[in-house]
Parts: sequence; C-alpha cells; structure tokens
Amino acid sequence: MALIETPYLLFLGDAPDALAAKVAQGVKDWRPEFAIGQYRMEGCNADMGLPDLDLQAAVDAGCKTLVIGVANRGGVISAAWKAVLVAALEAGLDIASGLHNLLRDEPELVAAAKANGRALHDVRIPSVKYPIANGEKRRGKRCLAVGTDCSVGKMYTALCLEREMRERGMNADFRATGQTGILITGDGVPLDAVIADFMAGSIEYLTPDNDDDHWDLIEGQGSLFHVSYSGVTMALVHGGQPDALILCHEPTRAHMRGLPGYQLPSMQALRDIALQLAQVANPGCQVVGISVNTKAMAEDEARAYLAAIEAEMDLPATDPFRFGASALVDALEKI
Amino acid sequence: MALIETPYLLFLGDAPDALAAKVAQGVKDWRPEFAIGQYRMEGCNADMGLPDLDLQAAVDAGCKTLVIGVANRGGVISAAWKAVLVAALEAGLDIASGLHNLLRDEPELVAAAKANGRALHDVRIPSVKYPIANGEKRRGKRCLAVGTDCSVGKMYTALCLEREMRERGMNADFRATGQTGILITGDGVPLDAVIADFMAGSIEYLTPDNDDDHWDLIEGQGSLFHVSYSGVTMALVHGGQPDALILCHEPTRAHMRGLPGYQLPSMQALRDIALQLAQVANPGCQVVGISVNTKAMAEDEARAYLAAIEAEMDLPATDPFRFGASALVDALEKI
Repeated sequence: MALIETPYLLFLGDAPDALAAKVAQGVKDWRPEFAIGQYRMEGCNADMGLPDLDLQAAVDAGCKTLVIGVANRGGVISAAWKAVLVAALEAGLDIASGLHNLLRDEPELVAAAKANGRALHDVRIPSVKYPIANGEKRRGKRCLAVGTDCSVGKMYTALCLEREMRERGMNADFRATGQTGILITGDGVPLDAVIADFMAGSIEYLTPDNDDDHWDLIEGQGSLFHVSYSGVTMALVHGGQPDALILCHEPTRAHMRGLPGYQLPSMQALRDIALQLAQVANPGCQVVGISVNTKAMAEDEARAYLAAIEAEMDLPATDPFRFGASALVDALEKI
Repeated sequence: MALIETPYLLFLGDAPDALAAKVAQGVKDWRPEFAIGQYRMEGCNADMGLPDLDLQAAVDAGCKTLVIGVANRGGVISAAWKAVLVAALEAGLDIASGLHNLLRDEPELVAAAKANGRALHDVRIPSVKYPIANGEKRRGKRCLAVGTDCSVGKMYTALCLEREMRERGMNADFRATGQTGILITGDGVPLDAVIADFMAGSIEYLTPDNDDDHWDLIEGQGSLFHVSYSGVTMALVHGGQPDALILCHEPTRAHMRGLPGYQLPSMQALRDIALQLAQVANPGCQVVGISVNTKAMAEDEARAYLAAIEAEMDLPATDPFRFGASALVDALEKI
C-alpha cells in the first residue's frame, strides 16, 4: 500500500442503514483525528455525527482523501456515486476504496484522477511488490491476535490494545492486514489478496525492525482451524514473528463461519497449536491472554463467562471493546 | 490451468548442462509416453536420449506441444530461442513454459500464436479463477507428502507412489501443485502463485470428488516449519483433505533451505503437528510412512538410516526413488 493521505472526508453515499457504513464508523471510532467530516447523498440513512461538508468545504478544512466508507449496492459504482467521486478528484481530493469493484476499473475516475493529479487507492489489492520472507529476527515486540474462527473480533482486539497502550504512553502501532483496517489507519497489507509465495514476506514488510520498546499490534486474519483461510493465518503466525499471542473467541458461534460441518476448536487446542507454530519463528513466544467478543451476551452472562474461562485457562480474559483492554496490556507489559 | 495437449516435443535449447534441463528430464522420467522427441540448438549440452526432431518431424510424429524443458540463461528469452518458438507455433505446435518471464509478455510469440491459432501455456501463473474452499467432504482418497523442509523430495515421492500404484493396477493420479509437476503431467495448480484467499480452494478444485477407490497423490509444497512458505503448506493440508500423510525428509540438510538461522524439525514434531492440522479437515487422517531422500548417502549408509528411522518412528520408511515405493503403497492399501 502507498500510504493514504489523511485526514479524510468520509463518503457515506446513499447508505441504506448504519451497518452499510461500518468502514466509516470504524474510522470515526478508531481514528477520530482523521475524520473531519462526512458526505451524504440523497437517501442516506447513516450518520456519523460529523459535520456534513461539501467537497470544497472538505478541501478547505484540510481533507486530503475521500474514503468510501460504505458498501455499494449490488457491487456496482452507480452513476450518482461516480458524479460525486469525479467532482471530488476535481476538487483536489484523492479517493480510497475497499470495494470489490475497483476504482481503477472505472474509466471516468481514472481520467479525472489523471487530469487532476490525484491518486486512486484500491485497498482491496496490494500495490507493493512484497519480498519472500527471510525469517530474520527483528527488533521490537509484536503481538498477534489469533482466533478460534474468522470474524471473532481480532481487528477490534488489536485496535483496543493500541488505544490502551497509547493511553499508557507506550510506543505501539496497530498493523492492518485487511481492507477495513487499512482504510481506518491509512496503511497496511491486504493479506487475503497477496500471492501465496509472498504472504509471510508481506507481514515481515508490515512489521519491520523497530525500537526495542515498540509494539506492533498485528490484526489477525482467518483461523488455523478454518480450512478455507488457514494458510493466510499461518503466514501471519510465521511472518509476524510474534512475541505474544492473544486468543480470540466468540462464544455463541454454532459452527465455523461458512462451514456448517465444522465445529469450533477448544481454546486449549487453539492455544497449543498456535503456540507451537509461533515458536518456530520465535522460540520465546507466549500466549498472554484471551479476548472474547461478548456482544451477543447480557452483561452478567458475559462477566460470568469471562471469569470461568479465566479460571479454566489460567490466563487473563476480557472483552476489550466492552470492558477495556487493561488486563491484556498488563500482561503484555510483562514481556 | 487449461490442460496442456500431449504428446510433447521437449525443447532443450542451448542448455549448458544436464541440470539446466531438469524439467525435460522429469517429463522423460515420469511421462515417457508424452516424450516423443527432443529439440536441441547449437551449444546444447543436455541429451534425453530421445530422437532429435525438427519442428515438422515433431508435428508429423503427432506432437501437440513444445515444452520448454530448460531454464533460460539470465532470465531472458533470447532472440535465438524466440526464432525457434515462433517457428514452432507456425508449424502447428502449442508452447508450454514454466519460465519466470512469461511467453505472453513476448509480443512476437503472442502474435505468432494468434496468427496460427495456437496456445501459449505459462504454467508459472494460474489461468483458472479458483473458488474459496468450502471444506465439504469429497469422495475418493487423498495422500499428501509433507516435508521437514522445502525441496526434500515431495514431488518425486508422489510420482513414485503413482507409478507403484499404477503398476499394481490401482486407480491413482499424481496431482501437480508446482510448475515442474505441471509441465511433467500437463495439468495442475501453480499454488505458489495463487492469491491467498483461494489457495485451499485451488487444491479442492485439483482433487475433486472421485471414485471411492481412487487415490489423489498430491504434490506437497514448502513445509509447515519453513517460515517463508508455511502458509502454502497449510492450504495443502486443509484444501487437500488428506486421508494419509507421508513424511518427507532429507537427512544431510544443515538448516532450513534459505534460512540459516532455522534448524529442521524432528520427524516426531512434523508428524504431530501435521496430523493435528490435517485432522481438522479430515478426522480420519493417518500418518502412514516416511520418504527419505538419500541421494547424498552411500547405499549402506542409506539403508542403515532407513532402518533406524523405521524403528524409531514405527512407520515404514524408504527412499522410494532409490529403493522403490512398495512399503509406502502397502501402507496406503490398508486405508
């Protein structure tokens, strides 16, 4: 990824509801300093509570990039969107998008970007030629979130850790490995779109040598137990060379996401296999804690679940988004 | 991969020595029925012992495809090569290549292929849009070679198993997952060049539902213990859904290939972790035997090593290329 210039104008388009604008919500929640304003079209039912800015007002306020913060209906960039996007390029904004259909495949946008000297960032696909991993030991510390399944809160866990560490004055950076994370932070590796031979190398590239006290908080992807995506996870475990693993789980999942015939592994199975594999790249790696996505549970139920798993696994357990990441950062500070 | 039409004319070009022509050697060793003739240019020091055919003679003998069986010097398709390749297309042959520099990037070849209605097969990169793996149980049986390291003989192991099974009248197919294997057999998945999200799906595609008594003998790639490529291996373990694993090893290797700081794992460590991971996709998976590449050992030394490891691991162990694959196929027949 070329770095996406900040701050952003968040484009909400004609979002039918708040959920469709979850990328914009992520930027607003996790990088409020990047979120200067929002741009809403007729029929938009999402609202980030930010100033509604027209394109010129956004430029005047210092915005550098219009970030498409909403999913497009039917996977098509509509004529109505296109008119706004062309006008944004003409007004002097770059555009960043994680949509499956790429900005670069739209001739009007390519022409307008070229005519106005602006950049189109398609974060869905890599723009860097990553190296093959060399496995050399890097300075600085790295934490990787690994999950019992896909979509159990690994990105939010890493972002919560970053926030808590920064509040404590620690030297820490979230490292995005997925499209939403990249749009939130402006940089990262779209790992699921990297060529197989370069996956681990892309993660080495993302988390280079750093200060001894620096933490890379690496966004996990997939699961070692998810047969569709386990290879991607494996590349994170080896390319990320983590010093610390956080186990992530969502307790109400009936089966592996998208795989009705597959049960979730136990936390013990995840701990044991992830640690063995991580120690190939970093013999000192430790499992330091558990992050549970308790969104589907009432508060007392969630607290009881966390207490039980903490006792069972003898590791600090929390829902960092709901109850804070202190216990996990306390554990990381000891490394 | 679109299927490459057989039989082949093996192009040896100006190979400086026999080693440079190892793809041609592989075709000749493993698919002699595809190897009708060879084409050698001035300065060629390789010889497959096949009839030297000019292009017209090759076409008259029934050849369908010229296979580039030699590495090109300096990574450039020279003018001298190009003249032969254009003439081959004009004579009515397709061309298949595993070179890093692609046939399709050479305008003269593209033009000649188009003018003559011939195909250019660049097996270095995928030509199929693979699905995301769905993990559904498939009929038929699958065996995967997994290694303590890269380049320890996984392809040769799978090819030896195929040959022995076919000699016994069993229903078996080698499934190529690398460029050399694809050129040898005319079909397969160039797994190292597949996009991350589709790796496991490409292996499901390669080894579909089959007869209950059919064996897919899947070429392994990388190693779960090789930090540069372990994600690729993981996709094979889960996408391949193996019923049987064969452990592959090269006993004289001082460190992991290309990674001076990394020691090879023990056979026990490979067995335990590969089996645990494979049982996620196929709970009935078993480790059935050991394949050792003893090329660097004298015969008595090799036999002593095999006897020792057989006793230590309580699994049949052989060098299938040197001493035959019977013991391994005996074990597979029991599954």
